Amino acid sequence: MTSKDEPRSREAVKAALGAQTVETPSWAYANSGTRFKVFAQPGVPRTPFEKLDDAARVHAHTGVAPAVALHIPWDRVDDYGELAAHAAKLGLRIGTVNANVFQDDDYRLGSVTNPDPAVRRKAVRHLLDCVEIMEATGSRDLKLWFSDGTNYPGQDDLRTRQDRLAEALRTVYDRLGDGHRMLLEYKLFEPAFYATDVPDWGTAYAHCLQLGPKARVVVDTGHHAPGTNIEFIVASLLRAERLGGFDLNSRFYADDDLMAGAADPFQLFRIMYEVVRGGGLTPDVAFMLDQCHNIEPKIPAIIRSVMNVQEATAKALLVDPEALAHAQRTGDVLAANGVLMDAFNTDVRPLLAEVREEAGLDPDPMAAYRRSGWAERIVSERIGGEQAGWGA
Amino acid sequence: MTSKDEPRSREAVKAALGAQTVETPSWAYANSGTRFKVFAQPGVPRTPFEKLDDAARVHAHTGVAPAVALHIPWDRVDDYGELAAHAAKLGLRIGTVNANVFQDDDYRLGSVTNPDPAVRRKAVRHLLDCVEIMEATGSRDLKLWFSDGTNYPGQDDLRTRQDRLAEALRTVYDRLGDGHRMLLEYKLFEPAFYATDVPDWGTAYAHCLQLGPKARVVVDTGHHAPGTNIEFIVASLLRAERLGGFDLNSRFYADDDLMAGAADPFQLFRIMYEVVRGGGLTPDVAFMLDQCHNIEPKIPAIIRSVMNVQEATAKALLVDPEALAHAQRTGDVLAANGVLMDAFNTDVRPLLAEVREEAGLDPDPMAAYRRSGWAERIVSERIGGEQAGWGA
Amino acid sequence: MTSKDEPRSREAVKAALGAQTVETPSWAYANSGTRFKVFAQPGVPRTPFEKLDDAARVHAHTGVAPAVALHIPWDRVDDYGELAAHAAKLGLRIGTVNANVFQDDDYRLGSVTNPDPAVRRKAVRHLLDCVEIMEATGSRDLKLWFSDGTNYPGQDDLRTRQDRLAEALRTVYDRLGDGHRMLLEYKLFEPAFYATDVPDWGTAYAHCLQLGPKARVVVDTGHHAPGTNIEFIVASLLRAERLGGFDLNSRFYADDDLMAGAADPFQLFRIMYEVVRGGGLTPDVAFMLDQCHNIEPKIPAIIRSVMNVQEATAKALLVDPEALAHAQRTGDVLAANGVLMDAFNTDVRPLLAEVREEAGLDPDPMAAYRRSGWAERIVSERIGGEQAGWGA
Amino acid sequence: MTSKDEPRSREAVKAALGAQTVETPSWAYANSGTRFKVFAQPGVPRTPFEKLDDAARVHAHTGVAPAVALHIPWDRVDDYGELAAHAAKLGLRIGTVNANVFQDDDYRLGSVTNPDPAVRRKAVRHLLDCVEIMEATGSRDLKLWFSDGTNYPGQDDLRTRQDRLAEALRTVYDRLGDGHRMLLEYKLFEPAFYATDVPDWGTAYAHCLQLGPKARVVVDTGHHAPGTNIEFIVASLLRAERLGGFDLNSRFYADDDLMAGAADPFQLFRIMYEVVRGGGLTPDVAFMLDQCHNIEPKIPAIIRSVMNVQEATAKALLVDPEALAHAQRTGDVLAANGVLMDAFNTDVRPLLAEVREEAGLDPDPMAAYRRSGWAERIVSERIGGEQAGWGA
Repeated sequence: MTSKDEPRSREAVKAALGAQTVETPSWAYANSGTRFKVFAQPGVPRTPFEKLDDAARVHAHTGVAPAVALHIPWDRVDDYGELAAHAAKLGLRIGTVNANVFQDDDYRLGSVTNPDPAVRRKAVRHLLDCVEIMEATGSRDLKLWFSDGTNYPGQDDLRTRQDRLAEALRTVYDRLGDGHRMLLEYKLFEPAFYATDVPDWGTAYAHCLQLGPKARVVVDTGHHAPGTNIEFIVASLLRAERLGGFDLNSRFYADDDLMAGAADPFQLFRIMYEVVRGGGLTPDVAFMLDQCHNIEPKIPAIIRSVMNVQEATAKALLVDPEALAHAQRTGDVLAANGVLMDAFNTDVRPLLAEVREEAGLDPDPMAAYRRSGWAERIVSERIGGEQAGWGA
Repeated sequence: MTSKDEPRSREAVKAALGAQTVETPSWAYANSGTRFKVFAQPGVPRTPFEKLDDAARVHAHTGVAPAVALHIPWDRVDDYGELAAHAAKLGLRIGTVNANVFQDDDYRLGSVTNPDPAVRRKAVRHLLDCVEIMEATGSRDLKLWFSDGTNYPGQDDLRTRQDRLAEALRTVYDRLGDGHRMLLEYKLFEPAFYATDVPDWGTAYAHCLQLGPKARVVVDTGHHAPGTNIEFIVASLLRAERLGGFDLNSRFYADDDLMAGAADPFQLFRIMYEVVRGGGLTPDVAFMLDQCHNIEPKIPAIIRSVMNVQEATAKALLVDPEALAHAQRTGDVLAANGVLMDAFNTDVRPLLAEVREEAGLDPDPMAAYRRSGWAERIVSERIGGEQAGWGA
Repeated sequence: MTSKDEPRSREAVKAALGAQTVETPSWAYANSGTRFKVFAQPGVPRTPFEKLDDAARVHAHTGVAPAVALHIPWDRVDDYGELAAHAAKLGLRIGTVNANVFQDDDYRLGSVTNPDPAVRRKAVRHLLDCVEIMEATGSRDLKLWFSDGTNYPGQDDLRTRQDRLAEALRTVYDRLGDGHRMLLEYKLFEPAFYATDVPDWGTAYAHCLQLGPKARVVVDTGHHAPGTNIEFIVASLLRAERLGGFDLNSRFYADDDLMAGAADPFQLFRIMYEVVRGGGLTPDVAFMLDQCHNIEPKIPAIIRSVMNVQEATAKALLVDPEALAHAQRTGDVLAANGVLMDAFNTDVRPLLAEVREEAGLDPDPMAAYRRSGWAERIVSERIGGEQAGWGA
Repeated sequence: MTSKDEPRSREAVKAALGAQTVETPSWAYANSGTRFKVFAQPGVPRTPFEKLDDAARVHAHTGVAPAVALHIPWDRVDDYGELAAHAAKLGLRIGTVNANVFQDDDYRLGSVTNPDPAVRRKAVRHLLDCVEIMEATGSRDLKLWFSDGTNYPGQDDLRTRQDRLAEALRTVYDRLGDGHRMLLEYKLFEPAFYATDVPDWGTAYAHCLQLGPKARVVVDTGHHAPGTNIEFIVASLLRAERLGGFDLNSRFYADDDLMAGAADPFQLFRIMYEVVRGGGLTPDVAFMLDQCHNIEPKIPAIIRSVMNVQEATAKALLVDPEALAHAQRTGDVLAANGVLMDAFNTDVRPLLAEVREEAGLDPDPMAAYRRSGWAERIVSERIGGEQAGWGA
């Protein structure tokens, strides 16, 4: 597909939608919550294997969610090969491996940027372990999000922490295998409240440039300051060939982690438009969900999120590139905006139903899941054991 | 003290500082954290009684922290009279009673605004129980913060939830005893991420007006949208005689709950200036801390916060009302701002050291606490049992 | 139409859309800009009469824009009766009268809250003059927006300014005739940068309560802090019977004054949903545009804005109240959100085309305007004179 | 001075303060305002020469403001050599040359990123003219701020605009002489309201990296999203050796352009601390004011701003590096924060008075200016002509 000039046929749009994949996160199938309360849900998985079972249902009904992200240690198992085999058996594959260096008491003052070199070594060891897990599971991408930062001015030296960060990233980068990539995530704040060590795309980008071509930036749609134009960042990173992927979710306020497309569907459309326009609708860019469903049931919420991403993508694909380019070139502000809005205002649900039916799927994934009995089954079967959750 | 016109003598300022009290929250002595991790600290209290023991140390070193806020059920005991007696023995008193209707599975979709009337009844019963605890402990103020709200547009009816809220508040208000007050807190967001049922001072104020004179608004300094001028709200509520008190803490981003005065000492000064100017430096306005110390030791962090409040108050008291009024009246923008800044730029630490010494205290509370050995003692003595924390 | 329980038939939806009116602002037809530059456009009106001529074109093509807001002194004429007659001849009427007490050198430090009583008197006199213009033009609503505020802490006394404001509002309120209303607007900031005297809905609401039943709050969609849930305010004001109307426009950052519905069409839909749900789709609530078209041509930008409001309203009317209420009552978060999103995701352009055709209008107002030749005509005919603009 | 390890003696602090310079902007001496109103002030300059006369008064009273920034075309003169000579005669020098490509009707849709190549060429020509003015005036730094951006999604292609920007910057960069630098400024929004072409430090930094070592980033303290940690950016740019300088001013909300240090003196201190810690208190970093005094008199407002910068710098210099490093190394959060706060809480006005007296200046610049009679003199002498202002 050309990126910018030719109008897309309905068939081309459908082909692009059929080829799109959305990676779902293992942790979204487990219990989660806010700092105030984790509301446990009946039937949530107790093991990484059960998380994959649930993910398989999302893929079964949507047809576009074959990859599942792991979070280590939340998804720690004795035999990662067995986990990957379980995924394969379910028609799934392991997506990104997400390192977690924020839930050990040692990390109170940071992980790879901790003032204590022993803690930094421990954190780096965990990251290197994650590379081993990538090898064992066939994962391509190591996703790094650091909660590192400080709560008070003066607490630690901002610049020295960047030096420590650069050193740790270098060590891990050098350990990556052929075909591996490092995806570096940024986040404005939380859990650090004064300064976060990778707070914005500029910081992530600068580190990636230093590291080399395998290092790419991840855009989490919930990790920006109010008012940030996220699609501009997406366009810039695609232009610089440094967009590694997305953590999709919704926010009204902070890192709310609501379902993707729930809070601002127009924004998600604008982001997907820049993806399409910048040639980013390829496997080089990982479209991951990263969200928490605190009050709604897990699996249907993920299905809805996947569908919301598909709808935004469909609308983005429907933008008429020729008409848009003409209006832009001639400085016709209203016409150019109108071309974009025509696509956004289109009801793409029938088109996506068609895509699904042609792929042998039910046109309505939500209803199909409801009818499947899976929700009732996991509630009745998953008795005993400890439910998975953040920190579990 | 006159509120606006006469310059204050050094003695008057010292007297006002000596008379000020800051209420500390029982939960700030216990473990707390973010949704990502609670970092346990050695020596934190295991019971409400031990929380009071720690609060007594803050009062011993600062001389201005005799009241301690309870949080029910975090501070549930069999005999509240015994708890109040323990406080009295330590030279303390029970301050506000804080209701908690957000940590039960039933409250997943809200408490007093829940669509299910049975849940609403349960929540109201808890609030009425809190009034009983007020009676048992001699507390004057019932502080109500509701986490109620919705995460998704359409999830529930915004207006009906206001009706339910009004009904619940009325029931509780009517149960208040003579001398009791209801303090209604507002918060922009978290844990609700789409709409919060009491999101701003306007909503809290409107409900208080409906309820009657015992209902007052609480201003938590961390609960506003970015850019909100908090001191304006304080001035407005004092003008309307509806300011019930403060939950003091610091924020850079959201409800960060850092030490009061840590993030923006100039803002805290401006707030205290409006308090002084509006005649709010009286027992009618409760100056409460409400903060979480996730990474720093609890007791010294609270001492530091109390001192920060004192310093802001001292600076506010030093503003020359006559000079300010003259500059304001004549429209001399730079001079008027200069009068305020002169007070803010003054180093008031010597003045506060004097106040402390005259009250028979060590001029340096932080150092005195350090030397007291309390920190070491609680680490060695508080062995076994379960540490108190949010939700415990 | 019932407000909440019965599903609306297609005919009922069309009837509601046909009955809706959107008031357009005279100043949106004139030149405007940012503090950096006003880009003049050929053909913009030179007089209030020509502004009405342009407004008549918007009404001619949309059929729902019969009212035009005046801004005094921008629309000062010798004979307001003549202006109203000109409007009537064009099938229009005069909507709100907007007072302007911010563009005179005397107002450097405020108008009705200025420390100088002579300036306050001058400002109040202007407001009273506006009431006379209401009488001369048959306008119902006096719309008051005050730029009053301070740029620096200490510059003036926040509380005294509220007293002055209350006094001025009282004087004007008492002068209102039968059938007149006072609409009080709030705005977070700009042009005041430290404290604005009416910064939020709480302040506006409190003053309206003091004044009496003719005083109502205006919600300008661009005048809030980041993250503010505007539809919650709308629902609250409707519940309190104090919603006077809207100033509709779009913002990404501050008071950007872009076309209504351009920045966040989902937000506009949510607002219109609360309007419909709260019984606000009546002449009691004035739906006004208040926006600036700095770089795009004026008239088609206003037509597009009117259409955007209509589309949001249509979607709001399509929400199935019964299905929504059922899902809300049963706590089915995903289903309830789904009912709302079904309406939002519907392409309502065909429905609105039908509404227009049944009213004898072209189904595509933008194309009809383009074909009308009006744009070319005003460029060629409006030669000489001084173009109208802010401050002119 | 070493940057981090040794405590500074009082003499070293005084020497550093004596060596600091603050560049004042020619446009701050002229009339300015908001989009709503420019309040003219009596006595403001009518020519660039008179602006220099006023700037000389600021330097005379503060001793640290020898450089004056020009803004072209606002400061267009026939003979720039003559202007530089006038500066020299007054003991001043020309600081940055600021290009202005936003106030011509051709720039309605952008300057160097305009879709029309003819407009882009015109804009680049202006930038090249500015390099000539640098040569004629002996200026070292070309400061580039672009208002370029779009108001509506779809209006123009975000990525293509980056290509155009890169091309224009390259052309100008290649024209710089030896010893010249290009300072690239970023700004979140205004006057563009959807997407700005250089919205954040990441974008500016990426372009500077592409251009070469003469290109550096300018941090305007008012140009960030709410919540942005500006001192982190400063530390990062110093670490990357790409910090070119500052545009200092204050904001509560957006680009308010209030006096530096007026809105958040603690933030200014934190910024200056990172400057000192990162070795940035050298002539390589230009400390410029860029602010508008809309309601207060120009010259004393600038004197106050210079003093505020000095006070923040003095406090930053007083931080005890050894004590801080020790507390940071040992993870003592409260102690580390305490070291920083000790410096901030110090009243440095006596120290700065000493610095001034030792330099032969009045210890109180505000009072000295007031007594000088200059304010009265310019009001009486600057009669006739046209007052300078934005756009004039």
